[in-house]
Amino acid sequence: MAGIFQRSLRLRTALRHLSPQSPLSWTVTGRHTPLDLHCPFLPSTSWQFAVCSRKLHTGGDRPSPAAAPDRLPFSRITQEDLAFFRKILPGRAVTDPDLLESSNVDWLKSVKGSSELLLRPQTTEEVSQILKYCNSRNLAVNPQGGNTGLVGGSVPVYDEIILSTALMNNILTFDSISGILTCQAGCVLENLSLYLEDRDYIMPLDLGAKGSCHIGGNVATNAGGLRLLRYGSLRGTVLGLEVVLADGRVLDCLSTLRKDNTGYDLKQLFIGSEGTLGVITSVSILCPRKPKSVNVVFLGCETFEQLLKTFQLSRGMLGEILSAFEFLDSECMRLLNTHLKLRNPISDCPFYVVIETSGSDSTHDGEKLHNFLEKAMTSSLVTDGTVATEDSKIKALWSMRERVTEALTHDGFTYKYDISLPVERIYQLVTDMREHLGGRAKSVVGYGHVGDGNLHLNVTSPVKDPALLAAIEPFVYEWTASCNGSISAEHGLGLKKRNYIYYSKPSQAVALMGNIKAMLDPKGILNPYKTLPDDLK
Amino acid sequence: MAGIFQRSLRLRTALRHLSPQSPLSWTVTGRHTPLDLHCPFLPSTSWQFAVCSRKLHTGGDRPSPAAAPDRLPFSRITQEDLAFFRKILPGRAVTDPDLLESSNVDWLKSVKGSSELLLRPQTTEEVSQILKYCNSRNLAVNPQGGNTGLVGGSVPVYDEIILSTALMNNILTFDSISGILTCQAGCVLENLSLYLEDRDYIMPLDLGAKGSCHIGGNVATNAGGLRLLRYGSLRGTVLGLEVVLADGRVLDCLSTLRKDNTGYDLKQLFIGSEGTLGVITSVSILCPRKPKSVNVVFLGCETFEQLLKTFQLSRGMLGEILSAFEFLDSECMRLLNTHLKLRNPISDCPFYVVIETSGSDSTHDGEKLHNFLEKAMTSSLVTDGTVATEDSKIKALWSMRERVTEALTHDGFTYKYDISLPVERIYQLVTDMREHLGGRAKSVVGYGHVGDGNLHLNVTSPVKDPALLAAIEPFVYEWTASCNGSISAEHGLGLKKRNYIYYSKPSQAVALMGNIKAMLDPKGILNPYKTLPDDLK
Repeated sequence: MAGIFQRSLRLRTALRHLSPQSPLSWTVTGRHTPLDLHCPFLPSTSWQFAVCSRKLHTGGDRPSPAAAPDRLPFSRITQEDLAFFRKILPGRAVTDPDLLESSNVDWLKSVKGSSELLLRPQTTEEVSQILKYCNSRNLAVNPQGGNTGLVGGSVPVYDEIILSTALMNNILTFDSISGILTCQAGCVLENLSLYLEDRDYIMPLDLGAKGSCHIGGNVATNAGGLRLLRYGSLRGTVLGLEVVLADGRVLDCLSTLRKDNTGYDLKQLFIGSEGTLGVITSVSILCPRKPKSVNVVFLGCETFEQLLKTFQLSRGMLGEILSAFEFLDSECMRLLNTHLKLRNPISDCPFYVVIETSGSDSTHDGEKLHNFLEKAMTSSLVTDGTVATEDSKIKALWSMRERVTEALTHDGFTYKYDISLPVERIYQLVTDMREHLGGRAKSVVGYGHVGDGNLHLNVTSPVKDPALLAAIEPFVYEWTASCNGSISAEHGLGLKKRNYIYYSKPSQAVALMGNIKAMLDPKGILNPYKTLPDDLK
Repeated sequence: MAGIFQRSLRLRTALRHLSPQSPLSWTVTGRHTPLDLHCPFLPSTSWQFAVCSRKLHTGGDRPSPAAAPDRLPFSRITQEDLAFFRKILPGRAVTDPDLLESSNVDWLKSVKGSSELLLRPQTTEEVSQILKYCNSRNLAVNPQGGNTGLVGGSVPVYDEIILSTALMNNILTFDSISGILTCQAGCVLENLSLYLEDRDYIMPLDLGAKGSCHIGGNVATNAGGLRLLRYGSLRGTVLGLEVVLADGRVLDCLSTLRKDNTGYDLKQLFIGSEGTLGVITSVSILCPRKPKSVNVVFLGCETFEQLLKTFQLSRGMLGEILSAFEFLDSECMRLLNTHLKLRNPISDCPFYVVIETSGSDSTHDGEKLHNFLEKAMTSSLVTDGTVATEDSKIKALWSMRERVTEALTHDGFTYKYDISLPVERIYQLVTDMREHLGGRAKSVVGYGHVGDGNLHLNVTSPVKDPALLAAIEPFVYEWTASCNGSISAEHGLGLKKRNYIYYSKPSQAVALMGNIKAMLDPKGILNPYKTLPDDLK
């Protein structure tokens, strides 16, 4: 198969671009969201990361692939520009440095830009006017939703104009028969969830950052999250988008249809493109019914092989009500015990599983769960377990999975990786990393979304340790690439990971991405320095 | 909202392109597949449709928008070309006219090309060599899977080289834990289904044409089908593609990961692009577990409003086990009685519903169904109904929905439309069409997939009737456009519908599609005359 050749080529390309690699030297300053939906691998101690890190060499001759490139030759904002923006956005063209502060910095406080202008449009027409003007003036623009991204994609790198969707927060329509919601891009995910729950529906995605993230940003980053196992990705649930292109043209693909095969599906270009191809202004999305019954179980397995068999059994016996299958290893449990004083609710095991069911009939769901557990126990797939049906106990069991990230922050400096792999391989990376690092790491732990093949690999050290990092990278990326895995399962590439793309995508594909960028944004004004690697620019 | 303006513009553009319109004059010669998954609106009596129809004017000064444009200036095949193909595909470069016959004609026998060369590669590398050569020689290529398409997209229009995926039929991998299947593009859908059923999985799509259609063709046309309500579209279930571009480059996006956010999702470009942007050579797809329990009910409703309320109730009470919600009207039932002697299994009603459940526990599914039916009856949403759990009775009930198409062929000449609409509007089009046509039509019937908002509108006449057609079109398209519907829910545009695209897509979007085509296939050799409207070429 040519595919094998291509993948081999991909790996070689990745190595050529990225190895040997300058060790990075960041510390964790941000707190993580529940369930580790947002577990970046590259947090930084420095507020000046973006601008200064190019000069930080810590062991190699070349700058880190994650460092910001030099500022591109965009125009600088003039008084005439300000006058224009103040005219079209009265009171909503912000230049006060105090007000700009929080929009210039990502929530991990790892990247800081120096934008002097924050625009807060309310309508698509205003976004169109802004971009048309910026394109004609060669002014760079950083589209920003709730600014909860973890790869430095949601903040300016230099002086890009920040275009916030915060005031575009109207729900436009909701069809209670089809469950299709249409809203502006700046609607906060949690507000949409609350709106829908009153109408017996839920959003098809749920994130730890739901209290502040915007649906437009969720779509722009193709956010994954907790419900992906059950309801699939945004590529299936987003039915339509309205997007403003770099030159101000409005692209109306705001369909509210489940089926439409008239030409190419242009909206897919913008899902997951991190604001580099257009600014999403409205979204239509298919919403599932609110489940009437939710159960959670916490189980222990002796081996990861048994854990995988348990997953397989749950898919067969829980079938349509299975809504989450998460895991953590005994090292995670040790950290929960040690640092957070959380008591293991079952007996000690090498692996633990959190399973959630969501269904329309509590009696049926309870019976299915009972039958599944009986089979899992009698087959010796699981050695111990406990079930929760009440809210408080459900939360307590979930916390064993959710609070691993918090426990890690108490264990020391943490190197974090968000890796997608074929499900049967996800724990092998942890084992191999442990063996590879030997005594150099304090802890090497693995947890994550088994159902999605998404591993959160974390390595701790008493203090930040460039030598340890040099041992982890590029090992972790090479290992992932050798399994055709993804080095960014759900966080995107943003500023920080853009140059690592070759580990997961062949050079042909990256070149084509560059062609698409050039076609849609020939001047490159939209979210520069993000997503695409520097060698394409 | 700019969106409203855009849609208004879209409609005006559509009218400018397509109205007034030459009446068309086709008859139905093809038989339809079960469940009317393939119900084209433009079948033709003429084998020479593609080449000759440009000259067939029947009431207007301009050719039909569905007619083939003039042949584009591609090269013609030489002896040197043949020698090249025979060398790289020994015994698989077919020139025998008898063997070419079936590949030159679509299965409706409505479009016939005049290709003199059929290539049958076995590997991606061979496809790459073919396209590299064709691109350099400016030879047009018609990619062909199972040739079950209904819009003239799967056959040559003139002398394009037919590139068949029939010999690319190997299953590459199947992961029994994740349910992810990887296979070559020429695998027949039914063969994949049988392979998976042995392993306790099913394909996430099911089509009437499954016995002959290829998975590559399914993906290239974004096939919908029976299971869309439950498992979503191919845009969510297809995880990866390997594609050969027009110039022979192999694009390896054959990921087998549920999550991958490293750059733009290029595979989406090729899903639903009908072979105009690249040739799909391999597919990876996420497969659901095989349901252990299936039930079917047949219900009657007094009004369409009650039918919609029944749909809403079923979503709430059947929840995760609802797998189909189909409808037919009393006119359909009359045709089933009259022409096929099928007896109505319940009392006469204006509307009938077929509901299917698929679940993992037959007792639970039966209880849910019972509770739902009791509620629907006591709320007077449905007036009568019958349930089937045995295979033979399930088939009998399904046949009331499946055989409507067959009954229509006995009623006279049939004008068929496959329309996607907001679910609450789908029957209004039938009512309005009935009123609009008055006594001019013999029958005006509506049936389709309520769950997907997909209406099959059919109008019959004793004989073909250009005046009747002129009354139907552009009325049906304008009506659909006024509701932001789609004039092709699942069949694509192909040759026959390419110029109707403006009814469902704004001109900005169509122009961007043209840019994408020019970027990926600058010489336009891949499936020319298809998908994109003539005014872009």
